[in-house]
Amino acid sequence: MNARIDVITLAVDDLDRSLVFYRDGLGLKTQGVIATEFPGDEVNAAGAVVMFELEGGLTLALYPRRELAKDAGIPVVPARSGGFSIGHLVATRSDVDKLLAAARAAGATVEDEPRDRPWGIYSGYFRDPDGHLWEVIWNPR
Amino acid sequence: MNARIDVITLAVDDLDRSLVFYRDGLGLKTQGVIATEFPGDEVNAAGAVVMFELEGGLTLALYPRRELAKDAGIPVVPARSGGFSIGHLVATRSDVDKLLAAARAAGATVEDEPRDRPWGIYSGYFRDPDGHLWEVIWNPR
Repeated sequence: MNARIDVITLAVDDLDRSLVFYRDGLGLKTQGVIATEFPGDEVNAAGAVVMFELEGGLTLALYPRRELAKDAGIPVVPARSGGFSIGHLVATRSDVDKLLAAARAAGATVEDEPRDRPWGIYSGYFRDPDGHLWEVIWNPR
Repeated sequence: MNARIDVITLAVDDLDRSLVFYRDGLGLKTQGVIATEFPGDEVNAAGAVVMFELEGGLTLALYPRRELAKDAGIPVVPARSGGFSIGHLVATRSDVDKLLAAARAAGATVEDEPRDRPWGIYSGYFRDPDGHLWEVIWNPR
């Protein structure tokens, strides 16, 4: 396998709610909901998805939970996994506080207030409206 | 928030098992388990982690499930979330088949055999030893 990840797809309960959170709350740019021309059928998931093109060629996608399960051939799982986290580096210590405050204002739940961690970073965690975990990190090194 | 993701951390039950899967099974390069000098305490999670530096500045990290929960201040959750997937693009249609076969040989479960999807891609899904979902994708466009 090449050393790359191209897409991170987050399963969401409400595509519009998540679009508002990431676009309007956190400021990520997107065309909004696309691929609505694929309605799905007995075999295939519906296509409607929100995509954010990030730096480095990575795409963050928001996709309805039931459609991801159908597309992958797995059972639908509840939200709030906590089984992974997405790390986002910021430039200064105060940027950690600011971004967590912005996420909270946009409807996120701050699970762990920013603090110094033994390995030299200052970080805090929030969950998005579906419970997906983000760590906002300042690394002084 | 800047349009970037720096780290994807997967919660794992057995760091060594996951290291073997991703390093030896899928061929990703890593220094192995690092940050073992941080044993953790009542407040702080232990540091031991496996990191893979990917293209575009992204890091894939493997971190014990209980430590991620402790670091984030959340309850420990069971494996096999299915609440997200990681998309990996390959260059040819047959590369999808090959990578899924390699993942299966390395201990992954193929959840959805490769097939054409309505939006023009050919892809299949596997789960890693902890149930984390990967989609291997060929996009002819």
